[in-house]
Amino acid sequence: MKTILIIGGYGFLGTNILKYIEDYLKDQYRVLVIDRFPENRDGLVLDCVAKSYAGDFSDSAFVDRVFSENKIDLVIHSLSTTIPSLSFNARYDVVTNLIPTLELLNCMVRHEVKEIVYISSGGAVYGDSRGVPHKESDDVFPISSYGVVKLAIEKYLMQYARQYGLKPLILRLSNPFGPYHYSMQQGICNVAIDTALAGKPFTVWGNGMTRKDYIYVGDFLNILFLLMRKGVFGEVFNIGSGHLASVNEILYIVKKNVPDFEWAYSDSMQNDVSQFELDTSKLQQVIGDYRFLGLEEGIKKVLDWKKKKD
Amino acid sequence: MKTILIIGGYGFLGTNILKYIEDYLKDQYRVLVIDRFPENRDGLVLDCVAKSYAGDFSDSAFVDRVFSENKIDLVIHSLSTTIPSLSFNARYDVVTNLIPTLELLNCMVRHEVKEIVYISSGGAVYGDSRGVPHKESDDVFPISSYGVVKLAIEKYLMQYARQYGLKPLILRLSNPFGPYHYSMQQGICNVAIDTALAGKPFTVWGNGMTRKDYIYVGDFLNILFLLMRKGVFGEVFNIGSGHLASVNEILYIVKKNVPDFEWAYSDSMQNDVSQFELDTSKLQQVIGDYRFLGLEEGIKKVLDWKKKKD
Repeated sequence: MKTILIIGGYGFLGTNILKYIEDYLKDQYRVLVIDRFPENRDGLVLDCVAKSYAGDFSDSAFVDRVFSENKIDLVIHSLSTTIPSLSFNARYDVVTNLIPTLELLNCMVRHEVKEIVYISSGGAVYGDSRGVPHKESDDVFPISSYGVVKLAIEKYLMQYARQYGLKPLILRLSNPFGPYHYSMQQGICNVAIDTALAGKPFTVWGNGMTRKDYIYVGDFLNILFLLMRKGVFGEVFNIGSGHLASVNEILYIVKKNVPDFEWAYSDSMQNDVSQFELDTSKLQQVIGDYRFLGLEEGIKKVLDWKKKKD
Repeated sequence: MKTILIIGGYGFLGTNILKYIEDYLKDQYRVLVIDRFPENRDGLVLDCVAKSYAGDFSDSAFVDRVFSENKIDLVIHSLSTTIPSLSFNARYDVVTNLIPTLELLNCMVRHEVKEIVYISSGGAVYGDSRGVPHKESDDVFPISSYGVVKLAIEKYLMQYARQYGLKPLILRLSNPFGPYHYSMQQGICNVAIDTALAGKPFTVWGNGMTRKDYIYVGDFLNILFLLMRKGVFGEVFNIGSGHLASVNEILYIVKKNVPDFEWAYSDSMQNDVSQFELDTSKLQQVIGDYRFLGLEEGIKKVLDWKKKKD
């Protein structure tokens, strides 16, 4: 049994990771959760969770206590206090994301915990694609403070690897969607589905033509645990389906399933990339001919889950 | 007349910038200085300095006052509280370098000051060369917290350029040496000269074979003011002589001039790059066939200046 600490365990990705362990890997992992919430927001029964620590990630004494009370084998860091489109206050990003993450790394060094999976962001770190898919070795042009902080954390992880033997696995994730998604401020697929099911009109920022890589969260989980099983630490990976879709395509797929769904276009004021494509060839060398769920199937899955839940 | 604010104006680079303006550009620039020292440490008469503000760069109210009291046209940011080889405390680096720089940028936005020259570091940002000279568009592998923070500042500068119209000029400088150098903890050329003239033995960390790009500070100044005159803002430039030298070569050049100079080798424990080469072709497109001072001539110049001074 390995003990995993998931930081941000009751957010979108965190909850999906927990559900995946609960369903498939309960005999392999014992899980600890740090989150500002004391439990998951869908009332899931999660036997795999040994203990939940509700508190503030930037309280380094609180985080240290979690490490003192447990023998932790691996940390999954999936917490961010900000999102790209609302990330205008650079100081806040640094103080609430970068510094607490440095304290986490220092804490890991003190408690001799080596392995950490860091959920970074392809779009936020690379910036616009300008027609050429981003490789892991490319220069990067983050267009938000959120992205600069994610990049700085990545570089610190690699520096701690050299200096203290930390074993980081850095995942530059594209745009995941799926169940247990709670934000109405980011994640176009989920927000469109929720808006459609609520019978409300949807506002598109821009003309809906911006195309990005979307990945169903189930695919992300399969890949995450495959990489962990293979022990490929010390690396940066782009994680995406390799398939681009425009906002308009997503909206039409939702409308196919929810015929009353309507939307309107508004001026673009987003602090976000306008075209975003990942080169996933490095990932493909590890996962082989893994078949990603199509966008249409994925959206249908989320709709079915939503309807069943309500 | 343009008003320049130099942050870290009485450090090594700052003092050399001031002396250059005093000697050649007094009719073009009026200078303000922020430094923890109230005046330069060599008792130079500097008529170009309109006012010196002694204080802590991380005191954002103090920095804001300087902008409120003056109409500033351009900022040169040449201050760091840490150096690569001593940069083990990541949090301290972030709190004393990154956050105050973000506050500086916010201050510039508030006071509508657009132009900023940021003195970054080639060696600290890129990491080891591994036989291939670093291009500005290469992926980077900072091996110290000092380097991660410099990189984060660079990326924030470019992000503020997009978001607020800031005009940054980012200079990834190699290893400058020359007069008005005060640190005995970094800058091998200067430290070797000072040690030799003091009649003391020198300790080499490692075998002295590590080769790096060294640039005489006078060459850096010519380039700095050329780039400023040409108004090439919004860019990142590698700044180096393009010539590599080993530590041993430097020591033998010093010994040629100070025959009693002795040194011994010690185990390498440096948090520094082992080989470091910059690709300066982007710079060369701007400066044309500029002739850099040779290392031997440069070291002689510093020795002559030192002897004259004492």
